[in-house]
Amino acid sequence: MKIIIAPDSFKGSISASNAAQAIERGIKRYMPHAQTILVPVADGGEGTLDCLIAAAGGVKMSATVTGPLGAPVTAEYGLLEPDQTAVIEMATASGLYLIPSEERNPLLATTYGTGELIRHALDAGCRSFLLALGGSATNDGGAGMLQALGMRLLDSEGNSVGYGGGTLDRIASIDDSNWDPRIAESRFLIASDVQNPFIGPDGASRVFGPQKGASPEMVEQLELNLTAWADIIAIKTGKRVHQLPGAGAAGGISGAFLAFFPASIKRGIDIVIEYSHLRDHLQAADLVITGEGQIDFQTASGKTPMGIAQEAHKLGVPTICLAGSVGRGIEALYEVGITSVHSIVTGPMTLQEAMSRASELLELTAEQVVRTFHASAQKD
Amino acid sequence: MKIIIAPDSFKGSISASNAAQAIERGIKRYMPHAQTILVPVADGGEGTLDCLIAAAGGVKMSATVTGPLGAPVTAEYGLLEPDQTAVIEMATASGLYLIPSEERNPLLATTYGTGELIRHALDAGCRSFLLALGGSATNDGGAGMLQALGMRLLDSEGNSVGYGGGTLDRIASIDDSNWDPRIAESRFLIASDVQNPFIGPDGASRVFGPQKGASPEMVEQLELNLTAWADIIAIKTGKRVHQLPGAGAAGGISGAFLAFFPASIKRGIDIVIEYSHLRDHLQAADLVITGEGQIDFQTASGKTPMGIAQEAHKLGVPTICLAGSVGRGIEALYEVGITSVHSIVTGPMTLQEAMSRASELLELTAEQVVRTFHASAQKD
Repeated sequence: MKIIIAPDSFKGSISASNAAQAIERGIKRYMPHAQTILVPVADGGEGTLDCLIAAAGGVKMSATVTGPLGAPVTAEYGLLEPDQTAVIEMATASGLYLIPSEERNPLLATTYGTGELIRHALDAGCRSFLLALGGSATNDGGAGMLQALGMRLLDSEGNSVGYGGGTLDRIASIDDSNWDPRIAESRFLIASDVQNPFIGPDGASRVFGPQKGASPEMVEQLELNLTAWADIIAIKTGKRVHQLPGAGAAGGISGAFLAFFPASIKRGIDIVIEYSHLRDHLQAADLVITGEGQIDFQTASGKTPMGIAQEAHKLGVPTICLAGSVGRGIEALYEVGITSVHSIVTGPMTLQEAMSRASELLELTAEQVVRTFHASAQKD
Repeated sequence: MKIIIAPDSFKGSISASNAAQAIERGIKRYMPHAQTILVPVADGGEGTLDCLIAAAGGVKMSATVTGPLGAPVTAEYGLLEPDQTAVIEMATASGLYLIPSEERNPLLATTYGTGELIRHALDAGCRSFLLALGGSATNDGGAGMLQALGMRLLDSEGNSVGYGGGTLDRIASIDDSNWDPRIAESRFLIASDVQNPFIGPDGASRVFGPQKGASPEMVEQLELNLTAWADIIAIKTGKRVHQLPGAGAAGGISGAFLAFFPASIKRGIDIVIEYSHLRDHLQAADLVITGEGQIDFQTASGKTPMGIAQEAHKLGVPTICLAGSVGRGIEALYEVGITSVHSIVTGPMTLQEAMSRASELLELTAEQVVRTFHASAQKD
């Protein structure tokens, strides 16, 4: 029996990679000789780098760069086999998790470190980039990232405006004379499920600003600043990111990529599917086991297990989903290719217990599910 | 697809019969045309009567009899198709549940009402009896039951000793001149999983006395009384129930049946299997779904799902067990025929929530299990 094991992380509890290993242990307890292929997946957010390296093969690089509030941080990126595609997980350089809660301030936070990380990869010879944008602390419209790659953002007196979302309204012109020429020779693929535009009620500042520490007054300032910045971008590049779907991802850095780089956006799970060679693995597979912390009717619109199930369904391979918690309306999942959903919780217990025992519970449940799945085959 | 649905009750939460119906609803949501056969099961304890009537067909009778402490109670028994076997569930006449906690007293409680119930069934023409002994309030060695059927238990002065476990030490002789002659023409099958002897450290008084309200001092008195009673029984019948396995069930009433009646003991589940025609139903079945509130390694030794699984296993039919809570050591279940075990709990929740939502959770889990089971068949 050939089984593809492709879980997402169980947020706050177990990484996708460890979840996949736990599921594999459960399967092997019942079927020691089953062929198992581990494809831990991510949606472009936290853990995407690890998942892609696990799935596609590759190495991790590290570089010291400017953190979101200026202090240096050691950030990682990946070099994937076979074409040296660089995987830049923005959060490692400019992530919210790098700043204590009380210091979070998107007026000050900059994407400069993300730009430095890209430059480091360019220096290493990379010309193909995957950008995972989840978890940023920033709302600077990618300005810092552009600065790190040679773009000078100048005020009306020709001085650099400095860094952070609070400076954007002072940008009067852009000097690209030092812009890194290697960017034009590269391709940039943005892994993002975010459909939000750059500005407006669904834009970066209003939707994501508060979770990055912005007060209501700061949100309004950030919105005004991103609007001014979008106007400047349009003047410089001829591209209007204002209402562009997806341009609002990660405090608008996505808009900067789309305007200044040879860049395109793809759903995170689709990129992971592509780089992990999931379609090849699915050939002659008997079963896919996916999973995530919480599954419900919302899963049907774009979450990781759904992307996996859709691919498997095309080839007639059933997908079983394991979840920490099974919510309402899972009927909606059947139509899009999920065969069944099983909770890993083995009896009444607290959320805390379920999360701390996730590995053990995944192992046990995976074994039971494979036993049940295999039972009808055995009978014949 | 033909599916046998044979759950036990989920104690304190849902009856076997309602559990079976919930599982059926779950199956039919996925497979409206599946052939489902409901065989709710019991182990000789609470619910055995309802299960046997559901499985074998039959009617319920009721009779007003003497309750365990003397007050009249309306007790039920069943008449099974096709041979008018009477199902006597002892607890309905002499059960612990009939007495408020603070009034429980096995020195006083009598099995007289159970004897009356048997007499009622004899009057109705029954000559075949199934005796379900779970849940008794008594420790009278079946003395009251014998009295109700005509046996006079006399003290050294030739007077009746009265009723309850506290009177047994005064019995000097037995007058069987009014003993109901129809008993010798009948057969009595005791449904009991209890292996305890009449007396001794593993006997009725010491093991079951405390849960019936006996203090440590009362337990010692009851033990002495049952010992004296066993001696009297041996003198009268030539049968020594003292160390007889199973004679200690239900405060020793089992010993009285074995000594004075044409009676034998059988594991509760085996009787249910026989009367429910489970073996016939299993012919050409694709799957058995069983279940109970709590499943763990102890289930391997005699609990209901195990009995079901053993029968199914003989015919190569896989058995999947649904449980409110899955405990440790379930590997032991695989060897005796259980294919897999799935908790019905769909995420972190309290015991109270799981119990109050049992019907809904069973339905949901049964659907998922059948989907998973059927998936491998579909693929081929």
